[in-house]
Amino acid sequence: MKKVVPLSDIITFLGKELKAIYGNPEGINIHYLKDPQNVDEYTLDWVNPHRHDMQLIAGTSKAKAIIVGPGVEYTHTLKKQGKVILLVDNPKLAIAKVGNAFFVDKPHPGIHPTAIIHPDAVIGKDAFIGANATIGNCKIGDNVCICPNVVVNDNVMIGNDVIIKSGANLGFDGFGFERGEDGDLIKFPQLGSLIIRNKVEIGSSTCIDKGALSDTIIGEGTKINNLCHIAHNVIIGKNVVITAHVNISGSSIIEDNVWIAPNASLRGHQTIGKGAVIGMGAVVTKNIPAGETWIGNPARKLEKKQ
Amino acid sequence: MKKVVPLSDIITFLGKELKAIYGNPEGINIHYLKDPQNVDEYTLDWVNPHRHDMQLIAGTSKAKAIIVGPGVEYTHTLKKQGKVILLVDNPKLAIAKVGNAFFVDKPHPGIHPTAIIHPDAVIGKDAFIGANATIGNCKIGDNVCICPNVVVNDNVMIGNDVIIKSGANLGFDGFGFERGEDGDLIKFPQLGSLIIRNKVEIGSSTCIDKGALSDTIIGEGTKINNLCHIAHNVIIGKNVVITAHVNISGSSIIEDNVWIAPNASLRGHQTIGKGAVIGMGAVVTKNIPAGETWIGNPARKLEKKQ
Amino acid sequence: MKKVVPLSDIITFLGKELKAIYGNPEGINIHYLKDPQNVDEYTLDWVNPHRHDMQLIAGTSKAKAIIVGPGVEYTHTLKKQGKVILLVDNPKLAIAKVGNAFFVDKPHPGIHPTAIIHPDAVIGKDAFIGANATIGNCKIGDNVCICPNVVVNDNVMIGNDVIIKSGANLGFDGFGFERGEDGDLIKFPQLGSLIIRNKVEIGSSTCIDKGALSDTIIGEGTKINNLCHIAHNVIIGKNVVITAHVNISGSSIIEDNVWIAPNASLRGHQTIGKGAVIGMGAVVTKNIPAGETWIGNPARKLEKKQ
Repeated sequence: MKKVVPLSDIITFLGKELKAIYGNPEGINIHYLKDPQNVDEYTLDWVNPHRHDMQLIAGTSKAKAIIVGPGVEYTHTLKKQGKVILLVDNPKLAIAKVGNAFFVDKPHPGIHPTAIIHPDAVIGKDAFIGANATIGNCKIGDNVCICPNVVVNDNVMIGNDVIIKSGANLGFDGFGFERGEDGDLIKFPQLGSLIIRNKVEIGSSTCIDKGALSDTIIGEGTKINNLCHIAHNVIIGKNVVITAHVNISGSSIIEDNVWIAPNASLRGHQTIGKGAVIGMGAVVTKNIPAGETWIGNPARKLEKKQ
Repeated sequence: MKKVVPLSDIITFLGKELKAIYGNPEGINIHYLKDPQNVDEYTLDWVNPHRHDMQLIAGTSKAKAIIVGPGVEYTHTLKKQGKVILLVDNPKLAIAKVGNAFFVDKPHPGIHPTAIIHPDAVIGKDAFIGANATIGNCKIGDNVCICPNVVVNDNVMIGNDVIIKSGANLGFDGFGFERGEDGDLIKFPQLGSLIIRNKVEIGSSTCIDKGALSDTIIGEGTKINNLCHIAHNVIIGKNVVITAHVNISGSSIIEDNVWIAPNASLRGHQTIGKGAVIGMGAVVTKNIPAGETWIGNPARKLEKKQ
Repeated sequence: MKKVVPLSDIITFLGKELKAIYGNPEGINIHYLKDPQNVDEYTLDWVNPHRHDMQLIAGTSKAKAIIVGPGVEYTHTLKKQGKVILLVDNPKLAIAKVGNAFFVDKPHPGIHPTAIIHPDAVIGKDAFIGANATIGNCKIGDNVCICPNVVVNDNVMIGNDVIIKSGANLGFDGFGFERGEDGDLIKFPQLGSLIIRNKVEIGSSTCIDKGALSDTIIGEGTKINNLCHIAHNVIIGKNVVITAHVNISGSSIIEDNVWIAPNASLRGHQTIGKGAVIGMGAVVTKNIPAGETWIGNPARKLEKKQ
């Protein structure tokens, strides 16, 4: 759906986040955000503050309006080009907020007629539940987006503002077996719940098991990408980033703000301390202290260069 | 659903597995199993025999009834507390059996009206088939539990007492291509079947391909966790444990009682001998002799400490 | 479905690919292809040209008709056995083509009544769309096979002759977040598309995200196996082979004819040059030049033995 957003509306939206406005925003309309290769006069462009050539990027952008961070000057050139420069502390964050507010289409609330909802399930306001989703006897908060083909088993609690992408499997039995006398594998009872706090995002085909005798808990604001496995009894803190194909074994504790790169594997019963970073493909067999970065197979601490 | 189980029923159920009963079970009712942090007087507690502080755990448990293994004594303290101590060889196994018998709710047999079943499919007694499952022209045994959104392609044979968790994909084409004269990838015909023996469990979003010119076979009692990939022509023995994110390439042979840790990858056309153990994240490129443990990338034998 | 194919039809089909025919094909009927252990007189057998014992395989095969490559002679023994030997340059390619033409059952075109198709979706000729598939507002080419429970989000473009296996998730939001002032993770807008060119195959439960500000593109003839994750903005060339559990992070460029072994992980924003090979479980953090083979964690160049 084509959008035409007056730049002045965006300026109003950014409010106090704007440290300065250079040039005249009047009469400028923004149609979209674009990647650097496709920026044109209808794009709201931005300059990544990690680039060394920020001034050059701003100067050569085809956009009329550019969000920049500290370090870009409103030169005579920019002025002559008639560009509008919006100065903020974090241009990427500002562009994210503007994009979400003006250019992202959100699904209209509603439950697709093919979704199967348990008659005793409690679902909050403004839920979107997609085609062929299956929701067990659960309690689900407000403003939740559950994409098609998601399966939520009984006894899962889901907070507000949660997004669950297609094909995710939530709240099924954990994987625990004890060998019987004859070598058979006897399932250990999986009787706990799965609790998903507010503002969590869960990726496609990701599987999060319910607890065995306690609960599996995903903390507020945590984001989990596609194809992750989170085993029974795992407790994850706030604002943790779990990228694709991450494997978190049972009874792990992941503290707030941890960042786990793709395809990392975590042995069970370990604790990953606050703000720790785990590298791509890392095979973590130990507790990791807060703030440390671990990489490799087996994972070892990455010593910071002096 | 709340349960109230007389301890005497549990004692009767355990039968000869019980080596001794200390204390008086009369009048004690069990409501649930709980994790150590949440044990209360209505819990059937147990003591992990691998703990060094078994006696202390038993002594400080808030439960009235505790299953223990050899090494815990019925001390004066326990006696004075009025605790009932049930002595077995393997407390974890006993608690698993009791949990499964008394506290796990099994789905009622039945085929959900939204499940799509091929008209020529043969399905045994007491099957549970969940919402939006799709079952091709297959032969399925008795007492099978197929969760929502599972897809079983044509020509899959499934034994008795099999559990297939949500979103699993069974019996689709394997991944084999031959480069044509112009560099195009030409699919190698995938004409085999997938055979799943009795008592197998298959995790959510796990994919098991049918064979190319022979069959893919999953042996009796084998348990496979979420998000695994098992390629064409793989033959897996009995009571094998395959944890999450394991990748088994084509034509592998996995013998009985092998244990494969999360995120391990196995190159095709290799044999993993009976009872071998493959470590987390191991990248296995060779045959592994029976009973050995291999870890790392590339995987190498873990030498046992003397 | 039992098939009876006159060998003469297969000979006609192979046409100029046949370099020579030894023996008399008249009256021979082929019922199937089989693996070496199960070859019988109704099998069209073939000899892998990489085997050192090609002549022995041909001599001991129970089949009446065998496709071979250069190096197998039509000996007196073969002649006495009444065998028909079909000589081609690449027997595996020939058997693949024959299998696809005569022995593989293709699904009949049609859209299953439980599939959910967006009213504005455009779907080409002869599409097969399976049960409980969900197709958003997309443009889909001719002769496409979409298996059950596939979810295709809005704004995905799919070419001709594409196969998408069950449970795949295509075109959902990529995983990009920026930390807000209070530590919250703010989603970066995901506004791009997903473009899938002709003759692509996508495996079960594989997830391919749409682009953020540009598009994700899967090049013609590329084959992707089960449980892969392909992130936003990734651009993949032609005839690339991506095996199971491969993880390709955002904004990667994978050039033509690259081969990626199972469970490899690629860091974002890197380029994998034409024809490069990435080993099983490799953790790739750098650009890889064309034609090179990289293995290990972290991945390093495999030097060819002299």
